[in-house]
Amino acid sequence: MAKLTDITWEDFSRLDLEAKKPYLERTEGDGMPYHTLFAQQFDRGILERLCTLANRIRFINKSKEGALYLKNVLAHKRAMLYFSQPSSRTFLSHLAACQILGLTTGSVRDAATSSEFKGESHEDSIRTFSSYFDMIIMRSPEQGLAEKMAWELSNSERPIPILNAGSGKDQHPTQALLDIYTLIRSFENKGGIDGRTVVFCGDLKRGRTVRSLSYLLTNFSDVKQVFVAPPELQVPDDVTAVLKAKGVRYEISNDLRAGVRIADAVYMTRIQDEWDTAKGESAKIDTTGFKFGAEELALLGKDGIIMHPLPRRDEIATCCDHDPRAMYWRQMRNGMWIRAALIASVFGFEQPIMNCGY
Amino acid sequence: MAKLTDITWEDFSRLDLEAKKPYLERTEGDGMPYHTLFAQQFDRGILERLCTLANRIRFINKSKEGALYLKNVLAHKRAMLYFSQPSSRTFLSHLAACQILGLTTGSVRDAATSSEFKGESHEDSIRTFSSYFDMIIMRSPEQGLAEKMAWELSNSERPIPILNAGSGKDQHPTQALLDIYTLIRSFENKGGIDGRTVVFCGDLKRGRTVRSLSYLLTNFSDVKQVFVAPPELQVPDDVTAVLKAKGVRYEISNDLRAGVRIADAVYMTRIQDEWDTAKGESAKIDTTGFKFGAEELALLGKDGIIMHPLPRRDEIATCCDHDPRAMYWRQMRNGMWIRAALIASVFGFEQPIMNCGY
Amino acid sequence: MAKLTDITWEDFSRLDLEAKKPYLERTEGDGMPYHTLFAQQFDRGILERLCTLANRIRFINKSKEGALYLKNVLAHKRAMLYFSQPSSRTFLSHLAACQILGLTTGSVRDAATSSEFKGESHEDSIRTFSSYFDMIIMRSPEQGLAEKMAWELSNSERPIPILNAGSGKDQHPTQALLDIYTLIRSFENKGGIDGRTVVFCGDLKRGRTVRSLSYLLTNFSDVKQVFVAPPELQVPDDVTAVLKAKGVRYEISNDLRAGVRIADAVYMTRIQDEWDTAKGESAKIDTTGFKFGAEELALLGKDGIIMHPLPRRDEIATCCDHDPRAMYWRQMRNGMWIRAALIASVFGFEQPIMNCGY
Repeated sequence: MAKLTDITWEDFSRLDLEAKKPYLERTEGDGMPYHTLFAQQFDRGILERLCTLANRIRFINKSKEGALYLKNVLAHKRAMLYFSQPSSRTFLSHLAACQILGLTTGSVRDAATSSEFKGESHEDSIRTFSSYFDMIIMRSPEQGLAEKMAWELSNSERPIPILNAGSGKDQHPTQALLDIYTLIRSFENKGGIDGRTVVFCGDLKRGRTVRSLSYLLTNFSDVKQVFVAPPELQVPDDVTAVLKAKGVRYEISNDLRAGVRIADAVYMTRIQDEWDTAKGESAKIDTTGFKFGAEELALLGKDGIIMHPLPRRDEIATCCDHDPRAMYWRQMRNGMWIRAALIASVFGFEQPIMNCGY
Repeated sequence: MAKLTDITWEDFSRLDLEAKKPYLERTEGDGMPYHTLFAQQFDRGILERLCTLANRIRFINKSKEGALYLKNVLAHKRAMLYFSQPSSRTFLSHLAACQILGLTTGSVRDAATSSEFKGESHEDSIRTFSSYFDMIIMRSPEQGLAEKMAWELSNSERPIPILNAGSGKDQHPTQALLDIYTLIRSFENKGGIDGRTVVFCGDLKRGRTVRSLSYLLTNFSDVKQVFVAPPELQVPDDVTAVLKAKGVRYEISNDLRAGVRIADAVYMTRIQDEWDTAKGESAKIDTTGFKFGAEELALLGKDGIIMHPLPRRDEIATCCDHDPRAMYWRQMRNGMWIRAALIASVFGFEQPIMNCGY
Repeated sequence: MAKLTDITWEDFSRLDLEAKKPYLERTEGDGMPYHTLFAQQFDRGILERLCTLANRIRFINKSKEGALYLKNVLAHKRAMLYFSQPSSRTFLSHLAACQILGLTTGSVRDAATSSEFKGESHEDSIRTFSSYFDMIIMRSPEQGLAEKMAWELSNSERPIPILNAGSGKDQHPTQALLDIYTLIRSFENKGGIDGRTVVFCGDLKRGRTVRSLSYLLTNFSDVKQVFVAPPELQVPDDVTAVLKAKGVRYEISNDLRAGVRIADAVYMTRIQDEWDTAKGESAKIDTTGFKFGAEELALLGKDGIIMHPLPRRDEIATCCDHDPRAMYWRQMRNGMWIRAALIASVFGFEQPIMNCGY
């Protein structure tokens, strides 16, 4: 079995993602992650197991008895939320997921509190947290840090799991999970994801969401991907290269309305001007044609859905909010359920929950 | 039945408080609030029910078994404490109230953490919280925001309750609740609140406390209100206009000692110089005669009580702290109990708690 | 019996530590603290009882059933963590200790949140917390504040216990506890602490750790203490004066390797330049000979241990981290267990836990 204790960090870090995957499993060959570091750990089987578990947890939680059962599942565990890059939305979603399962939590969630760790190496900080907690949910501006910490802990006396809640620009695996979960739920009794057309619109160049979701969709059959963006913000070549290599149908476009007409799902994104390298870079781009409003809503099929990772600015007009096809609020709540499913599974409680009497 | 789903925000916002009240009830005609937004929601019957429930919770909590029973009451619920205007005292009191009932909590409690929401509309932030939590306890510098959010949520797929923990200068309904609860408890076996004389002293012009308590006291029979303040800080005309309209006896005064001699309760307040519109405005006012010390204590009747919403500066000398008539510490603790009562009632647990075997 | 209600603050504050001790006991003559304020409260009997209780809690917590038993022990209590001097490590360790025992917690943990209390006296802030919580765990830059607050609360209507998690430069009693606990565990089946040689190295002049541990070691028989430091950072005279008075063997040295050769435990410390009174004061000191690396490791006996209160900079080379004699990570985790033991004992649950069926 591939174990992180059998490989040096240098050797591990040089592997490609596919080769890293078995090192991160909870049980050999099972696929379910112990450390959750990147979206590529989820193949179709894993995605479906996690979505099934999330549905189960959501159902059990409807009754008070069920909710109290769930609160007992991980009541003997404690999770550390280490957010050196603040994000209240992602923080609260993971917090709620922990609370559903009964985990108590500690946190460092802003620069002010975490600054005191600056004199200390990341490795020492993480080992500190591992002394007091049973899982570390971490968000960091530093690319690759979650991977390094997973390796470090696995080679320590407290080999507790790491859940990557966003590391730099590269990975945010549970965001990808909740997007897939939302698609699966939306098309649950309508034939599933296979054969669907997903239209991405907005800033497709920067940020992790589109990149990860585009990849995960290749796990399904015959999903067509359409990328609608101003030329300056189009999807990067390495994303389309993966699609080409896998024989996935895709289209590059700058016509949102044409996209909406053929879309099963429209995935809107915000212009991520926080990544501007020159002052006002984003402001110079004409984004007028890349917003979803009443007219686009009128073009969307009756089973079509609108998604957004939130927060939004003006990419989606608020007049769409009460339309039953607006899925972005439910998408956010889905994030809580799928994270609860993931955490339960990391600690080996997939089967007990699936089989419990609630 | 009056429902927030049956009225537009524009129409609702134009109603006066009495007319708004039925839209905020948990059950038609019952009076108990679902959304708790302003002190005028509490009539005498509601106040007495909440105080009775608070007494019951306080009693049950005395034994470990009782405390564990209470911790199970809302163990299946999660509350979000959204304090965009920081206040550790009010925050901790609501937090403790949640913990007594077993609610787990998430929070945003300072500018640093909440600043990231700035790019997002209030409506979107609140809907985010409503995705993860079952109740929102909010404090905001913005007048009327809690009302708007209550309307928004009631018209969403997650119509969870809002508890206003202070919005701008206008309302802080649970502060008024705890003041009434303190009066009710203090005169419990001494004939009750009816017929009492309550003396307000200090800065009666600014801040929400005096305004709300003065109003709630009109629910009781024949309570005389005396307002003792320097002329610059006297109680505003709209407050006395309500008293006049309701035929309530009141007096405007600048003689604290005369007030103390006839008082059943002396309600001291801090000079709220944070609302100064000109630099040093408050400092120019002569407040020497509006402080409660050893001499005032000597004038107070043996069943009289001293109240203060805290924090204090020098309005009450510390030499009064150990006098049995100093009620301000107990008043603070009363806040925790009455908030627990309110939260339990919002979720429909008034009767189960009243009737439980503890 | 010595009670804090029978003595004025002025009289109490003038007593020496030995004379203060009985005023802080939970039960007359028993020795176990109610308020935990300084390391000198722990004599050998108390230390051994707390370490035995910590071992018991650690053992019970290994099974899920045991962990759930522990989470019920103080589930009816709430603790306030009041950290006006931030320290995430100490904060998280106390938080985890509370969570193990089922206490729910509130916190003020940084300057931003606590600044609003500035207009209020410490006494009023602490009384506020005592209204909502059943224990206050406090860390403050102000020397002696925890003592004052313990006296204040004991003389109030809510005489809840204070746990000092660090006050100014003088006391940090639970750090001393965890150091002793680490020594006791390390030599548990190897003849105990009596007769051992403990080598302190680094900045022995500033900071509370060395001072407290040196004192507590005098509770054991024939422990030799060696102080290895550059002359500018040597152990203060008042520490060696205590050793002289008690007839304890000690040595002043500047030769770490000579110390390591004879050491049963090497206690490394960080240069505490945050206490520099002149700019660059610490940087001018030659500390090259006071670091523990591969060569020192080679000199350490096979049963010897390496300790460090953490965080570290470069006093211990990371190449030592995986050596079985490197005890500093376990030392940190020991802190959580011994704090849980202390808190359980403060609330009178030493015997129930010792005698429970797990």
